[in-house]
Amino acid sequence: MNGAQSLVTTLLRSGVDVCFTNPGTSEMHFVAALDSIAGMRCVLALFEGVATGAADGYYRIAGRPASTLLHLGPGLANGLANLHNAKKAGSGIVNVVGEHATAHIALDAPLASDIEGLAGPMSHWVRTSRSPANVGQDGADAVAEARSAPGRIATLILPGDTAWDPGGVVADPVAVPARQTVDTDRLEAAADALRIGASSLLLLGGDALSADNLEMAGRIAARTGCGLLAEWANARVERGAGRVSVNRIPYVVEKAVDLLKDYDRIVLMGARPPIAFFAYPDKPGVLSSPGCEILETADRAHDLTDALAALADLLNAGETAPAGVAETGRPASPSGAVTPESIAAAPGATQPEGTIVIDESVTTGRGFFPATAGAPPHIWLNNLGGSIGYGLPAAIGASIAAPDQKVLAMIGDGSAFYTVQALWTMARENLDIVVLIFANRSYRILMGELANVGVQNPGPRAMDMLNLTNPEPDWVQLARGHGVDATRVDTADGLAAALSERFGERGPSLIEVVF
Amino acid sequence: MNGAQSLVTTLLRSGVDVCFTNPGTSEMHFVAALDSIAGMRCVLALFEGVATGAADGYYRIAGRPASTLLHLGPGLANGLANLHNAKKAGSGIVNVVGEHATAHIALDAPLASDIEGLAGPMSHWVRTSRSPANVGQDGADAVAEARSAPGRIATLILPGDTAWDPGGVVADPVAVPARQTVDTDRLEAAADALRIGASSLLLLGGDALSADNLEMAGRIAARTGCGLLAEWANARVERGAGRVSVNRIPYVVEKAVDLLKDYDRIVLMGARPPIAFFAYPDKPGVLSSPGCEILETADRAHDLTDALAALADLLNAGETAPAGVAETGRPASPSGAVTPESIAAAPGATQPEGTIVIDESVTTGRGFFPATAGAPPHIWLNNLGGSIGYGLPAAIGASIAAPDQKVLAMIGDGSAFYTVQALWTMARENLDIVVLIFANRSYRILMGELANVGVQNPGPRAMDMLNLTNPEPDWVQLARGHGVDATRVDTADGLAAALSERFGERGPSLIEVVF
Repeated sequence: MNGAQSLVTTLLRSGVDVCFTNPGTSEMHFVAALDSIAGMRCVLALFEGVATGAADGYYRIAGRPASTLLHLGPGLANGLANLHNAKKAGSGIVNVVGEHATAHIALDAPLASDIEGLAGPMSHWVRTSRSPANVGQDGADAVAEARSAPGRIATLILPGDTAWDPGGVVADPVAVPARQTVDTDRLEAAADALRIGASSLLLLGGDALSADNLEMAGRIAARTGCGLLAEWANARVERGAGRVSVNRIPYVVEKAVDLLKDYDRIVLMGARPPIAFFAYPDKPGVLSSPGCEILETADRAHDLTDALAALADLLNAGETAPAGVAETGRPASPSGAVTPESIAAAPGATQPEGTIVIDESVTTGRGFFPATAGAPPHIWLNNLGGSIGYGLPAAIGASIAAPDQKVLAMIGDGSAFYTVQALWTMARENLDIVVLIFANRSYRILMGELANVGVQNPGPRAMDMLNLTNPEPDWVQLARGHGVDATRVDTADGLAAALSERFGERGPSLIEVVF
Repeated sequence: MNGAQSLVTTLLRSGVDVCFTNPGTSEMHFVAALDSIAGMRCVLALFEGVATGAADGYYRIAGRPASTLLHLGPGLANGLANLHNAKKAGSGIVNVVGEHATAHIALDAPLASDIEGLAGPMSHWVRTSRSPANVGQDGADAVAEARSAPGRIATLILPGDTAWDPGGVVADPVAVPARQTVDTDRLEAAADALRIGASSLLLLGGDALSADNLEMAGRIAARTGCGLLAEWANARVERGAGRVSVNRIPYVVEKAVDLLKDYDRIVLMGARPPIAFFAYPDKPGVLSSPGCEILETADRAHDLTDALAALADLLNAGETAPAGVAETGRPASPSGAVTPESIAAAPGATQPEGTIVIDESVTTGRGFFPATAGAPPHIWLNNLGGSIGYGLPAAIGASIAAPDQKVLAMIGDGSAFYTVQALWTMARENLDIVVLIFANRSYRILMGELANVGVQNPGPRAMDMLNLTNPEPDWVQLARGHGVDATRVDTADGLAAALSERFGERGPSLIEVVF
């Protein structure tokens, strides 16, 4: 058994059975091992950012890591932006990165680079295997790291000779530490804060946004009168009719500050203290009011189910009817010209129960979230790292994790370009994904940001850098070129009709929504 | 004047007047400065790897650096693969990378990452500006670094407040050190080696491959009888009818070893010792014969024009008629079914004088180079870093540097996907580029590599990772979706006819060559 074979077998034994791949020569032994050992689902990506973003989406739905297979330093580099997003989301991923054979590294070949150096900033754990005998154990260690709570990015670098030489040893799964329990002192302090009522906020993040945990949070809110919010971006929210509905802290600084100004204390339950996405001259970075007390009760490493139950116990809220339960009710189907407001109801009016919504709709999509609150139960995924290009790949991973659920990927046209090659993988794997492209033909968010920094009348050089016009991309042809069927709509009713039709079919499709 | 304005003015004053951009919020002040200060040509890319690859192509043709504008760590990360290629090619680039404002960095916002850590492996020089008063000088230092010989990758990180705060100071250009002169001892040793004749090889790289320097090398070869070769991949070769034609060391290890086995000494003139691109079990990494003497006469930091002239003087070759001058002669126009062999003559039969050929044709294109030896004078660019996805972006930069010359970008379909978004920039800038896509619907090179590592009968899991079928991409639709006109050909005569037609027009076009 060579090192590569020991690694594939170890990964499978440790529960990693999906590999998003974009291999090259230095990974051919790993490919050969995947070929000869049954059990690993291999999904080819045409660009590495698709592979890493898919692994992020997979983790969020499956609750366990997938692996990636990347080609040397530059292949890893192409995957880093979505590893950044996954790292911020707490998604566990095992990256397998090929490296030249040990003797070849000294020759400084064209593809030689500092792979550990590249991996470091976007990984929690980096290791280069030193011999075929180590590879199995290295792989098991990587999986345990990736399976920690929250999930972590583990990058295992595999020199060619450690993959191809004999002497591989399959390793047993490595135990993953249990989630941390929250200290009673902290829970009691949180309970005291929440008891004060409406001037206290329970801010939720991470696993606190599962349907069951949201229900418990809703009981606490009903019992105490405290506010209940989620962060702007969340890895996974279970929501819809009959579930406790929670609003998100707005992206726009002024709106966030206004929403948070009445809270004198914030209890963090899997969330981080509220801060602005970006810095602006003369705007605050911290969004909570000056003097607001921040109680760091529990973070994403804690058992949040346990923490919320314990908190509810302290507050005698365990049997209270939860506040904020969303009533069943789809919005009316929209009509008229396409505007962010007119189309906001389209997903809520059409999406089937169990839909996984990947939200990278940036400026267009801020109305979709409230308009789906009463839709049949569904799951909502945001980008936590802010690097656009996460949505199409994440849709792939989500669909592979849950093949019987519809995936709705809502993507701004600017964002979609970064990882547009994801469309081809959707076609190859015949994934049940409906892609909405919001073709406002601009980096619309940047137009607002340019105004935010004080440029009120941008000239042509600036506008050329913010507009996706001249030429206008044709997303129907782009989709078909990748093998995905596509439609163009230019009215809100047309969008609703196209969504209804596409949700009734299986397989990937794309709807270009023209503004 | 704020820091961003001082930087734009400094860049212009230092001779950097092209910026390949993909900005975000943290770069809006730089965008505003570009808007208000005339003189910088701004070229928008829809993906950062397009921006960095374009800067590589620009340097190789213009002989001076362009700048890039990238959004925070993930934006830089997306540009790293082509920075790797540029670094290996010796192309100078000034990257301007936005960073959160200094006070915001401590908040660990979603887009926060270790930008210096990311930049390090693919940069020669990394600096984070500390105040608006420093930004101008930092920019001038970065340009001087990028303009060194060979060109270097300089990455300047610009925290938001250093861009937006007042106090910017425009800096004067920083002097670039002169190229090094080769020691007389080394030149005499080289002359002694070459005098031995046919068992000595003069191996050329870097600027030694300009037409004038090749002519001098040809005189030396004629005088001494030594062999003359170039490396497999070269940043820029000036070649064609009437110029000294030089073959390249083959990519395939066995072929390279066979070619080099008769040389007992190799004189390096801007080249590195010949090594294999990849390591394989049981194949050598060093391609020269065992015992071959390697004379490191001059590398890319030296003045190779001066060194070749001095070497010719020592050998009394200055007036000798050069060996290896290519006779004028296009190959016959090809016909028949598309195979790598049948289409090899198509570019040579059609490309106009002055064409800049970007060669990322991988397996398909190994016949193009010899078949163009007698075509009208032209320039040939290879990928030196081996990270595929360099060709389409490099074509953009080459065309912007030389708007009156045709650019022919020959790209394998697998390679083209990594930076496919480049097509849109070609359309927006109406660049005079003909793109050939070799649609063999596979990572064909990897099929050979899989066999090289000993897998003779790959199963479906391996083949699925090497084939771009199911579905087959449609490059005509992909091009049109990006705004580029396109044609499909499936015969060698059809390819020649399409090339003739496209060379007769202006503006970007794409020809899909179906195998």
